[in-house]
Amino acid sequence: MKLKSFEQFNCSLAQTLSVIGEHWTLLIIRDAFFGLRRFEQFQKDLGIARNMLSDRLKKLVQAGILEKSEGPGHAEYRLTEKGLALQPILIAMTHWGDAHMPHPKGKRLTFVDRRDEKPIKKAAVYAADGRRLKPREIKARPGPGLLNETGSFTQAVAAQELPSERPG
Amino acid sequence: MKLKSFEQFNCSLAQTLSVIGEHWTLLIIRDAFFGLRRFEQFQKDLGIARNMLSDRLKKLVQAGILEKSEGPGHAEYRLTEKGLALQPILIAMTHWGDAHMPHPKGKRLTFVDRRDEKPIKKAAVYAADGRRLKPREIKARPGPGLLNETGSFTQAVAAQELPSERPG
Repeated sequence: MKLKSFEQFNCSLAQTLSVIGEHWTLLIIRDAFFGLRRFEQFQKDLGIARNMLSDRLKKLVQAGILEKSEGPGHAEYRLTEKGLALQPILIAMTHWGDAHMPHPKGKRLTFVDRRDEKPIKKAAVYAADGRRLKPREIKARPGPGLLNETGSFTQAVAAQELPSERPG
Repeated sequence: MKLKSFEQFNCSLAQTLSVIGEHWTLLIIRDAFFGLRRFEQFQKDLGIARNMLSDRLKKLVQAGILEKSEGPGHAEYRLTEKGLALQPILIAMTHWGDAHMPHPKGKRLTFVDRRDEKPIKKAAVYAADGRRLKPREIKARPGPGLLNETGSFTQAVAAQELPSERPG
């Protein structure tokens, strides 16, 4: 499977997928958030083929999402700042799964604020003033990284009325 | 490529990936958010092989994320409520790409509140009172969907001190 092709799209979402969209990658990152650091820990937890795990870890290090260091007798992989910045994506996916693919017995995990143990705010799209916005209450405005380019989907979007501006 | 295997994990993130984690799927959903509805529109925009597009659309309809209806001479695919609920995931991915894989000329797209044209709040993890939380300021608390299960990663996590509770 190659995700290389996504790099060609002038789209921040596609760029992100080119790095974290590969099969298993997000589950490896999830495990890293839970404190797993060693090849054997990831392998045992996920049951993933060793050559595939090795490939994914290598790519995550190359992408600057994991940092590899030599521990006592084994390598360790830790999230970098760039990797830690993926947390809102993981939380948004978890909340969607909670809502739309729930466990019959109830919540699997609840993420809480360490300070007061209160559940975090639901992953959602918020306005600058904190109002929660519904999907059709936002629109996309093209910026300089898009307007001067040719051939991309987003350029086509920018040239027209944005389709997303037509509710319905 | 099969993502079926992710269904076996008792984890809301893995469940979500089992539906939207396949190659191309999130870009099809992105296009649907921008108003694309027809097979030919998706195909032309993404340059994806027709049989693969056909497979992905079929799975998205089966998963209840897209709804298929017969338009004048062609089928149309629209996001359902369950599909629209994916927006926070797409926005979080877009914001991460903006920050970590930027276009050299600047922002590609800015998402704004339709009401006042102000940019939406940055996708992040927020506390109940609206404070922005850093990755290590949250922790996971196991719920009933996890504690009564055996054999999963998350059950192992629940049984121990949660590794994520140890900052470092």
